[in-house]
Amino acid sequence: MKMIYMDNAATSWPKPDIVYDTILRTMKYYGANPGRSSHTMAIEAANILLYTREMLCQLFNAQDPFRMIFTYNTTDSLNLAIKGVLKNGDHVITTSMEHNSVIRPLMHLADMGVETTIVPGDSEGLIDPSDIKRSMRSNTRLIIATHASNVTGTLMPIESIGKIAKDSGVYFLLDAAQTAGSIPIDISKLPVDLVAMPGHKGLLGPQGTGVLYVREGVELRQIREGGTGSQSESINQPMFLPDRYESGTLNTPGIAGLGAGIRHILNKGQGKIVSHVVNIERLFLNALSQIKGVKVYGPKDMKHRSGIVSINIWDRDSREIVNILSRDYGIATRGSLHCAPLAHKTIGTKEQGTVRFSPGEFNTLDEVKACVRAIGEIGYKIETRSI
Amino acid sequence: MKMIYMDNAATSWPKPDIVYDTILRTMKYYGANPGRSSHTMAIEAANILLYTREMLCQLFNAQDPFRMIFTYNTTDSLNLAIKGVLKNGDHVITTSMEHNSVIRPLMHLADMGVETTIVPGDSEGLIDPSDIKRSMRSNTRLIIATHASNVTGTLMPIESIGKIAKDSGVYFLLDAAQTAGSIPIDISKLPVDLVAMPGHKGLLGPQGTGVLYVREGVELRQIREGGTGSQSESINQPMFLPDRYESGTLNTPGIAGLGAGIRHILNKGQGKIVSHVVNIERLFLNALSQIKGVKVYGPKDMKHRSGIVSINIWDRDSREIVNILSRDYGIATRGSLHCAPLAHKTIGTKEQGTVRFSPGEFNTLDEVKACVRAIGEIGYKIETRSI
Repeated sequence: MKMIYMDNAATSWPKPDIVYDTILRTMKYYGANPGRSSHTMAIEAANILLYTREMLCQLFNAQDPFRMIFTYNTTDSLNLAIKGVLKNGDHVITTSMEHNSVIRPLMHLADMGVETTIVPGDSEGLIDPSDIKRSMRSNTRLIIATHASNVTGTLMPIESIGKIAKDSGVYFLLDAAQTAGSIPIDISKLPVDLVAMPGHKGLLGPQGTGVLYVREGVELRQIREGGTGSQSESINQPMFLPDRYESGTLNTPGIAGLGAGIRHILNKGQGKIVSHVVNIERLFLNALSQIKGVKVYGPKDMKHRSGIVSINIWDRDSREIVNILSRDYGIATRGSLHCAPLAHKTIGTKEQGTVRFSPGEFNTLDEVKACVRAIGEIGYKIETRSI
Repeated sequence: MKMIYMDNAATSWPKPDIVYDTILRTMKYYGANPGRSSHTMAIEAANILLYTREMLCQLFNAQDPFRMIFTYNTTDSLNLAIKGVLKNGDHVITTSMEHNSVIRPLMHLADMGVETTIVPGDSEGLIDPSDIKRSMRSNTRLIIATHASNVTGTLMPIESIGKIAKDSGVYFLLDAAQTAGSIPIDISKLPVDLVAMPGHKGLLGPQGTGVLYVREGVELRQIREGGTGSQSESINQPMFLPDRYESGTLNTPGIAGLGAGIRHILNKGQGKIVSHVVNIERLFLNALSQIKGVKVYGPKDMKHRSGIVSINIWDRDSREIVNILSRDYGIATRGSLHCAPLAHKTIGTKEQGTVRFSPGEFNTLDEVKACVRAIGEIGYKIETRSI
C-alpha cells in the first residue's frame, strides 16, 4: 500500500531531491564548524550559512541577512521572541487560535508577572482585529498572532493586526509556523517586528531548523549565551547580530538543506506551489460537502483559508479516524488536539479533536480523490454501525 | 592537495558512512514528525528517537532513556542545565578552563544575582579539587567543570570534583563537549548529576544535535515551553521527562544520525578508538619535542591528556600559522582563543592563542607525520625569517 502523506502541517514530506542532495554533500564535503576557524572547509561551511540567510531575504523580501536568526525550531524562535521582549509588568495580547508554542511560554511568564489577554476567535477561527485594539493597555508591549491556525487553517488578518501594533508603538510577533514558504509574506510591506518560522514545513528544509526574523530597532534580549566564534577574548555575549542569538555550533547541514528548499521554491515559483495547494483544497472541500456525516472546520470563504482541511466524521473520536485512515488506507493525517487546546475550545472540538489533512506541493489530485473515497467509506461504515 | 582534517574538537569529520546513510534514509522514508500522530511514519520517527536514547544509555551505562534529553547543541544543554538549576542568591563554582558556553551564561546570571567563583587551573590547565572544596559556601548550589579543556586537552579530576559535590549535597554539571564518545564515561559510577554533550563531536553524529543527561531527582526547570505532542489539552508545560525539556519539532534525521554514530562506536569498540587517538597523540608529542621553536601546551603526563595537541611556533600569532597550514599544506586546524579566554589567560596565551590539532578516529599516522613535517618547515622558515 503506497502511503498518501497528508501531514505537511506537522512537517513537509517528501522534500525536493535537491534538499537531500545538499544535506548529504554538506556533511561529506563541507562538514567543518562554520565561523570557528579560517581553514578552507570551515570558511565554506560559513558561506553556506550566509547563502541560506540570503535565500530567506529573497523569499521574504528582507534586506539584511544577519537579521535572519537560525534557531532549533519555531518553538525555539517563539521562546526567543517572547522571552527576549517581555519583562515583569508587561502586558501581551494574543489569540485563542495560537499553538501551545505561544500559549505555554506565556503561561510560564504569568508566574513571573507578565499579563496575557487572549482574544477569542469566532466559530470559523477568525480573529476580529478590533478585539485586539480594545484589549490594548498602557503596559501592552507585544501582540502575538498566528498567520494561519494549525487546527482550522484560518488565515488571520495580520495586516490589520500589524497596523494596530505599529500605531500603538508595540511589537508585533507573527507565528508563521503554518505559512512560511507556502503563503507569500513580504516583510518589507507587512508591519511586523518579529517573524518565527520553521525550516521544515513550507520552506521544505529538514527538521532541526527554525528561523526568527528580527526587524532593525527591535530590542531583544538573547535567551542563550555561549561560544559564537566571535569576540573570543570576551567572557560576555557579543551584542551584534546574528551572533548575539546564535551560540554554539549551528546545524550546518540542516541549514544548507533549508537553503536548498528555498531555492527550490524560488526556482519553481511560490505562486505555482500556492495555486496547486489551493486547487487541492478546493477539490477536497467540494467533494467533502457531498458526504453525509462530515463536518469541515474553518472559514467557508476560500480567501480566509490556507490549505488545511480539518474535519470530523459523525461523532467519532478523531484519533480513531486517524488510525483507520493509516491502517486501512495508508493515509497519514493527524488527529486529537494539535497542541492548540484553546483553538479547539473556540471551534467546539475540545473532546473530539479534528482529523487534519494538510496537503502540500507533492500531493496529487488523485491522492485527494483517494482521501475523499476513504472518508466516504468510513462515514458510511459509521452510519451503518459496521465500525 | 588532499585535506588533512585536524579539527575534530570543533566537529568530527568525516562521519562513519552509516551516519550519512541513516540520515538520508530517515529523511526519505521516516520523514514524519515524531510523537505528533499515530500514522505509521510518525510512529517510526518516534521509534528513531527512542533508539538513539537507548544507544546513549548503552554507551554511558545509564538506565533510563527518558533522562537523555535532546537539545540543539552543547551550548543549549549547558544553558538548560545552568538556568534550570540556578536562582537569584545561589552560588556556583566553576573553573578557569571552561568554554564560553559555561562562562557567558554565568556572566549573564551575575546580573541577576547569581554569584560565581572561578577556580584557576595551573600552568598545564589542571584543576586542584581542593581549590573547589575551599570555595564551597552555604549557598553553593552547583559545581560546573569541563571533562577536558578544549584549549589544552587537559583531563580534569572529575571523580574527585564529583565526590566533593556529592558530599556537600550540591549538583555537579559535567561539560563533556570534548569527551563524550571519545573518552569513556560511566554514568552509573561517576558522581555526576547533569552531563552536557554534543552529538557532533566524539559521538560522530551530525551538527544540530546535543544531549543533556539529567540524573533522577535533579530539580531542573525547563527553559523552553511549547508543543510536545503530549497533554495537548493543557496550556501548561508537561512536567514529565523527556517532554518537559523537549518542546517543538526535534531534529529527527540528526538524532537518527547520532544513534548511528553511537552504534558505530559500540560496534567498533570505544577502547579501540581511544587507543588509536592516544597513539596518534603520543607520536605527535614525541615528534614535536624534537622541533625547535615549538611550544606544546597542557600536561606532560599522558594520563592527564585527552587527544588535543595545542601548540605555538616561536612567537607567531596562532591565526597566521592556521592560515599557512591550510593554504600551503591543506591541514585544517583551529587557532586564536577557542572561545575560552580564561583558559588562555591561565596558560599565558591570551594574545597569541594556540594552534590546535585535534585528531580523531579517521586520522592516520601518516597524516600526523605530514603535520609534523609542516610544523618543522614553518618553524624553520620563521627562524630564518623567510616567512
